[in-house]
Amino acid sequence: VAADTPVIGIVGGVGPYAALDLARKILEETEATRDQDHLPVALLSLPASIADRSEFLLGHADANPGHAIAAVVEQLARAGCRIVGIPCNTAHAPPIFNVITRTLAARRCSIRLVNMVEEVVRSLASDHAGSVPVGVLSTTGTLRSGVYQAALAAAGMAVVTLDEATHAALVHEAVYSPRFGIKAHASPVTDEARERILEGIGRLAAARAEAVILACTELPLAVPERSVAGTTIVDATRVLARALVHAAAPDKLRRGRD
Amino acid sequence: VAADTPVIGIVGGVGPYAALDLARKILEETEATRDQDHLPVALLSLPASIADRSEFLLGHADANPGHAIAAVVEQLARAGCRIVGIPCNTAHAPPIFNVITRTLAARRCSIRLVNMVEEVVRSLASDHAGSVPVGVLSTTGTLRSGVYQAALAAAGMAVVTLDEATHAALVHEAVYSPRFGIKAHASPVTDEARERILEGIGRLAAARAEAVILACTELPLAVPERSVAGTTIVDATRVLARALVHAAAPDKLRRGRD
Repeated sequence: VAADTPVIGIVGGVGPYAALDLARKILEETEATRDQDHLPVALLSLPASIADRSEFLLGHADANPGHAIAAVVEQLARAGCRIVGIPCNTAHAPPIFNVITRTLAARRCSIRLVNMVEEVVRSLASDHAGSVPVGVLSTTGTLRSGVYQAALAAAGMAVVTLDEATHAALVHEAVYSPRFGIKAHASPVTDEARERILEGIGRLAAARAEAVILACTELPLAVPERSVAGTTIVDATRVLARALVHAAAPDKLRRGRD
Repeated sequence: VAADTPVIGIVGGVGPYAALDLARKILEETEATRDQDHLPVALLSLPASIADRSEFLLGHADANPGHAIAAVVEQLARAGCRIVGIPCNTAHAPPIFNVITRTLAARRCSIRLVNMVEEVVRSLASDHAGSVPVGVLSTTGTLRSGVYQAALAAAGMAVVTLDEATHAALVHEAVYSPRFGIKAHASPVTDEARERILEGIGRLAAARAEAVILACTELPLAVPERSVAGTTIVDATRVLARALVHAAAPDKLRRGRD
């Protein structure tokens, strides 16, 4: 590892397990055979300070969590990070993400914030020349924000989604249900959460999606597979991990994946 | 989570996967049903700056990694951490650990450093009133340093170890072999590494150990079980995780384990 390799910052706590999943995928996507080969990483998890992103987008809470996320990014910058990833797709919905970028700009924080949505669409565009129908599974807030639909359409890709009620029951509930959701039961994930997400993938595949984006960072905790019943699974967390490794040290990026 | 809850610091990179395993076990050992219930944690992983602990203890390298570890602890303190854990048993061997504590004292860094070895012995003493024979599996450096043997003996517990050549082949190699060791192949761990560690546990059990300490933080990555063939497995990483949660917020410690 070169001495001037930038430190990768991770905004932790959104959610806590998802942030560790990103950190782990950064290790997995780095060429390394001993401890010293791995890249410098700082993870700051202050979950109690960051209000729920879905609650804000759905209009159930007033405080925009973008301000608290920007404060964590600033702390990472002060600790020496020059590249930062936020392992929460919902935080990339424009009502939150724009507050993060505006706050950082106002405070003259010049850290490079890697945009997970842009990276996922870029990765899909490079893997699938031409237009394939792509399905999206996310929180209801991310779905309603249209952030993935807009980015995919701008790249010329057709988007497949489920109607909102079905999507909420199969995906949002798999993340947020107090009884079986991943935020309350991450280790291990419940069978109920996994089955609902698999059902969502199956319905998108039946609607002719050739790839399905797991566009909420809790989802790959339940479905780690790279394909399900012939449908390619695009793990947004792994795409972000690879983008962060590439941004910090392109020669260290593990080959043969993406 | 109370607003004055201290931030838990994790010295990352020693090794990188082990640090994430500690961070994950801190989450698992915290009473939480939503993101905001989890404790504040900062993890700083600068693996290239910290020389291999075993190489130093075995006399194959001159630089004492204790200085670099102390520097990471200081950075965590500057970032606001008040409690720190080091998820590397080998770094707790006195030739390294004493340098860490002396360096921090000289720089007037008053952070609370939770000692993994002391916590493991305390946990065993509280679970097993009276003396049970306890086996120890670790790197060869930790074994030679005698840090676990001394702490267990001081607590009145009989210690079972393997002869050094057997221990090196079954445990040190499972961690360090470039071909199958956990440091080079952590995700997934190789069958060969797991089989060797299980063989080590089996031999200690045959030598009448009633509990076996996984006293190297790579070992639970290969053997997550809480018991193997009737022998209790003491995961030093999980004990450290519980000690850190208890130190930061005792009322948040998950009940019914230890």
